[in-house]
Amino acid sequence: MGKCINHPDRETSYICLKHQVYLCEDCLTCRDPKIYCKYRSSCPIWFISKRQQKWDEEAQKEAEEVSCEVTFLPAGQKVSVPVNSTLLVAAQAADVHLNASCNGKGSCGKCRLVAVSGDLKAPPTPMLTDEEKEKGYLLACQTQVTNDMTVEIPPEVLEQKLKIAGMGRQVTDQLKGLVSEIDPMLKQIPLQLDPPTFQDSVSDLERMNRGLKKTGCDVAKLNVGIKVMRQLAEVVRRENWNITVSVIRRKCANEILEVHAGNGGQKSLGLAIDVGTTTIVVYLVDMTDGAVLAAAAGHNRQADCGDDVINRIVCAEKDGVKKLSKMALATINSLIGEVLDSVESKKEDVRNVVISGNTTMMHLLLQIEPRYIRRDPYIPTVSDFPIIKAGEIGLAANPIAAVFIMPGPASYVGGDIVSGILYTGFHREDPMTLFIDIGTNGEIVLGNKEWLMTAACSAGPAFEGGGIRWGMRAEEGAIEKVTIDPQTLVPTITTVGAEPPRGICGSGIIDLIAELLKTGIVDRSGRFVKSLVNDRVRYQEDEPTYVLVFADQTPMEKDIVFTESDMKNLIYSKGAVYAGFTTLLSEAGMDFSMVGRMIITGGFGQYLNIEKAVTIGLLPDIERSKFVYMGNSSIVGAYMALLSTRYRQEAREICNTMTCVDFSNTPKYMDEFTSALFLPHTNLEAFPSVITG
Amino acid sequence: MGKCINHPDRETSYICLKHQVYLCEDCLTCRDPKIYCKYRSSCPIWFISKRQQKWDEEAQKEAEEVSCEVTFLPAGQKVSVPVNSTLLVAAQAADVHLNASCNGKGSCGKCRLVAVSGDLKAPPTPMLTDEEKEKGYLLACQTQVTNDMTVEIPPEVLEQKLKIAGMGRQVTDQLKGLVSEIDPMLKQIPLQLDPPTFQDSVSDLERMNRGLKKTGCDVAKLNVGIKVMRQLAEVVRRENWNITVSVIRRKCANEILEVHAGNGGQKSLGLAIDVGTTTIVVYLVDMTDGAVLAAAAGHNRQADCGDDVINRIVCAEKDGVKKLSKMALATINSLIGEVLDSVESKKEDVRNVVISGNTTMMHLLLQIEPRYIRRDPYIPTVSDFPIIKAGEIGLAANPIAAVFIMPGPASYVGGDIVSGILYTGFHREDPMTLFIDIGTNGEIVLGNKEWLMTAACSAGPAFEGGGIRWGMRAEEGAIEKVTIDPQTLVPTITTVGAEPPRGICGSGIIDLIAELLKTGIVDRSGRFVKSLVNDRVRYQEDEPTYVLVFADQTPMEKDIVFTESDMKNLIYSKGAVYAGFTTLLSEAGMDFSMVGRMIITGGFGQYLNIEKAVTIGLLPDIERSKFVYMGNSSIVGAYMALLSTRYRQEAREICNTMTCVDFSNTPKYMDEFTSALFLPHTNLEAFPSVITG
Repeated sequence: MGKCINHPDRETSYICLKHQVYLCEDCLTCRDPKIYCKYRSSCPIWFISKRQQKWDEEAQKEAEEVSCEVTFLPAGQKVSVPVNSTLLVAAQAADVHLNASCNGKGSCGKCRLVAVSGDLKAPPTPMLTDEEKEKGYLLACQTQVTNDMTVEIPPEVLEQKLKIAGMGRQVTDQLKGLVSEIDPMLKQIPLQLDPPTFQDSVSDLERMNRGLKKTGCDVAKLNVGIKVMRQLAEVVRRENWNITVSVIRRKCANEILEVHAGNGGQKSLGLAIDVGTTTIVVYLVDMTDGAVLAAAAGHNRQADCGDDVINRIVCAEKDGVKKLSKMALATINSLIGEVLDSVESKKEDVRNVVISGNTTMMHLLLQIEPRYIRRDPYIPTVSDFPIIKAGEIGLAANPIAAVFIMPGPASYVGGDIVSGILYTGFHREDPMTLFIDIGTNGEIVLGNKEWLMTAACSAGPAFEGGGIRWGMRAEEGAIEKVTIDPQTLVPTITTVGAEPPRGICGSGIIDLIAELLKTGIVDRSGRFVKSLVNDRVRYQEDEPTYVLVFADQTPMEKDIVFTESDMKNLIYSKGAVYAGFTTLLSEAGMDFSMVGRMIITGGFGQYLNIEKAVTIGLLPDIERSKFVYMGNSSIVGAYMALLSTRYRQEAREICNTMTCVDFSNTPKYMDEFTSALFLPHTNLEAFPSVITG
Repeated sequence: MGKCINHPDRETSYICLKHQVYLCEDCLTCRDPKIYCKYRSSCPIWFISKRQQKWDEEAQKEAEEVSCEVTFLPAGQKVSVPVNSTLLVAAQAADVHLNASCNGKGSCGKCRLVAVSGDLKAPPTPMLTDEEKEKGYLLACQTQVTNDMTVEIPPEVLEQKLKIAGMGRQVTDQLKGLVSEIDPMLKQIPLQLDPPTFQDSVSDLERMNRGLKKTGCDVAKLNVGIKVMRQLAEVVRRENWNITVSVIRRKCANEILEVHAGNGGQKSLGLAIDVGTTTIVVYLVDMTDGAVLAAAAGHNRQADCGDDVINRIVCAEKDGVKKLSKMALATINSLIGEVLDSVESKKEDVRNVVISGNTTMMHLLLQIEPRYIRRDPYIPTVSDFPIIKAGEIGLAANPIAAVFIMPGPASYVGGDIVSGILYTGFHREDPMTLFIDIGTNGEIVLGNKEWLMTAACSAGPAFEGGGIRWGMRAEEGAIEKVTIDPQTLVPTITTVGAEPPRGICGSGIIDLIAELLKTGIVDRSGRFVKSLVNDRVRYQEDEPTYVLVFADQTPMEKDIVFTESDMKNLIYSKGAVYAGFTTLLSEAGMDFSMVGRMIITGGFGQYLNIEKAVTIGLLPDIERSKFVYMGNSSIVGAYMALLSTRYRQEAREICNTMTCVDFSNTPKYMDEFTSALFLPHTNLEAFPSVITG
């Protein structure tokens, strides 16, 4: 227990382990970025609640006696949980997906449900309006089940179809031909062996090795496992010595993994998988010609444990890394099932896999201890992963499938970035390039074929809808484009899939802020101009607010609004990214004028309005022709590595070449960050086109 | 069904699949070597009994309804089996060891039990005397359980302590120092790593690899498994970066198998294991100085499925290779427990293992398909085994322990012979050497440092007591030395452990035959001289017999006798070995005069009276100083390979150098065999000292 840093008269048990400060519950949930966001969840922070602990202990005791049944509408999933479990725990147990951005702290207000019947116990929360409370809204993470009960998932929370980068025929068709020489990790080598005779009586294994040698396989480096030895004699005779041998290549040694029927025209499929913190994308690839046969994308089920990597690690420490691994696998395997079904193939046909993702995602997926990623001095357990077998990690592929994990140089710059560089290819070229991947985090790379420098900035999940009242991912119904009439202040919006509006996604938020600034609704500090009050700009719960869509035009019959707190969250995020650019350039003794090209990637990048991103100061005010959008580069890099040894090798080289800068250890970064907390920036000279525009 | 080859008027369902001849039940059980032994169990033969099949089907049906309880005295083990199971099946299920030399064919008469109470069903058998039948004796493999019953294991069948070669302090103490440079497969490398800092923030795995590189480990060839990656972060921090890494070396690649606490003075133990068809020997070795800390030997529990490798393979085909593997493992693991207990160590301390054994034993132990070993053209599935992990094969050692299996060049010349050559070392020397390993089989090697030639002869299990009425292994109470007074024909015997006589083992049998020949009780064809009938030489069940010990001097109160059939079995065995010598020499264009040295090894060799072995024509009549006994060379070779990479490499080289001759494909062998079916031989000129002696 200690005194709250903002309210010295209050005792609290919440402590930030990094900054060693106490914060009371109000400060944690006040949504005032000056107080809360300073220590928000995307920086290495860990709050311990002694009260929560006590609750847990009590619940544990009672649980041994009673359990309650919870029913989730509209689908009607039922689950039995110990009395006093939270509804979030019940939802996870029932495999009902609820977005719990803040990992159950009660501070994001995203895990909303509506009580239909039954008793419940919940502390007061400022995350719900009085109107909502009247309608029976509750926060799943804060509500304890005390009896059998039924709750409903309100329509605005129900998961919708994602619109993300890297999908669609027109994108994937372009990939074929990107890799000229296909060279998988796990090779299928057909052999026609001579049957044994008295004159030629070598063992079956030796006979097979002899056959492999003729195909150019280095038999001296070839290992074989007990499973193959056990099946060998039967298979070769059943198939009349006409067999196919699966050989995996690992570092200098190879291994025979399987022997089966010869030239039976087996399919040879591969998977490229991008495991994002928020979104997972899967490509199914024909390993014979490199064609992308199908693609699928879905929400990373781990989001039930928080929006960002820190919350995921905290959850892994609490509930075990297996839980998080299972959640990611549930999404990945269901997507794999989807792409395989679409081409009527079986998972056994998949013998090569490449997975790209940030360092935390990879640790969690492989059930490798992630806790030191978020602790000084931020050390990952593994950065360059050996090739592993799909069966070892529970991937829905042939258990012997070779899995290559994109290597990542640091705890906060992972294989997804290496994969992105591999695809965009600026590490092979002359022009000085600034590369940014905007996802749940923001990773920046600066360099060219001579050198590469990288850092991660705590952009936070705002660009993916996290921490924003009506923020959402780019699902159907998300507002993705906004213009505001300067006279009437009435907005014109475009939604994903042209569905009725349900919230606002990253690109819509950037548009909106640029428009709010241009129309003078907010000033350069992001504050609403007090004098300007009409039916679009009003106070709501003591906070200035812009109404984007009125309730009667939404499926959930509620106003979609953008508050001053939302604005401040967003400014913190864009400031973190911009400060990343300037700090990294400064570390290299450079400025924006020396940047020949700026590459933007990430699922987000595809819808970004560059002009407006410059207007709000997210992107620098440089010549617009220097900007290049490259969509989801992580999945394409994974696709390339799937097909080619050279690219897998190149990924390792990129990873080894990169110099990592740790902003938490770079005092300049905090100055740059503070300067960037204006629209577009404190220093207007850096944004000449915005001033004149 | 077909006509018996000896009795054309009889229909029979027993067929020899190799020779495509039918044999009636009388011929199979008549014990006349001219008929039965010609097709005896040690040649590649497989009898199918349609009648047995029908019985099985009936039993299956009834079994679904009733099961019976069988109690085995004197220990009182109880087991429930389906009605109509044989007592042999019940004994195996109850883990009661019964020697079933013929694998349940009913032809060896070894699996004797005495009925105490309960009903039973059994066909008539000539294997039991009328007297025995009156006493309630029965054959377990021929007797079906129809009710709850109690049986007793008679004292002469109870397993006794083995006396075998390679045991005892005086033998094992000599081994220390045999290997000068100790170099295990699985190395324990202690590391003191620098803790990570912001300036040195490589991943834990990279940090460990860096440490390993400093010790001279080739990190480029180093793989690491998922298990190590999962435990790494916790272990290095718990141990304050002072760790020990277990690295296994396989072909060109190495693998990190385990990371644990640093320099805690862990024991480093190794096991050398000789898996004989009959006997298993285990040495526990201190890997730091090569000392043999303990040794143990026991009966291979697989003997419950037959005396020789062919019966074991037949059993594996019928019941699955897992059953045979489990039986061998039961013996091995119990012996490992014994040696570990004696030095108060745990199996986790064992990290290196070398196993030596014949090709069939190795296939069965590893659960690798053995069936093609006994089928034209006799092909093993694997001859050169990769290093495997103890956990993969169920060995009672640390699951990550590296297991090296001695490579064997052919189906009937295995790793035990390579191991023997490695130890005796004649492959490095000039003198032309003839090497014989007499165990359940007889393998012969001819050669020197220039070349090696090898073959196996079907000696059969007679030298280990198989197929001999009162034959037994060299257990306590076995008669191992015999002289016969030429006047009175009264024998003087010596038994193993000076215990009351219970039967006769190999060395005793050789002594006995030599004495029977010298005293004129039998003639050179092995037939009993009819005129000579006194109380020692008499007819018993229409067969001439020599009484070695009268009933009142035995614990089981029965005469220990040696019959004319026993004699013929033995002559077939010794003839097979001698024909092996002459055929192999002839294939090399040589004769005995060119042999500079003759090495005899095998558990048997230790008690062999060379003079008498020459007298009966088992060994050639060459200068006696050329004979060298080297005991159990297989276990010593395994010991050497355990300690040294060079010797493991040398074993592979020996295996690759050997030219294998297949006698079943060498017409000369049958001629040589026929000539050797006399005492000592048809050609007396080859045995000048025997003639004059």
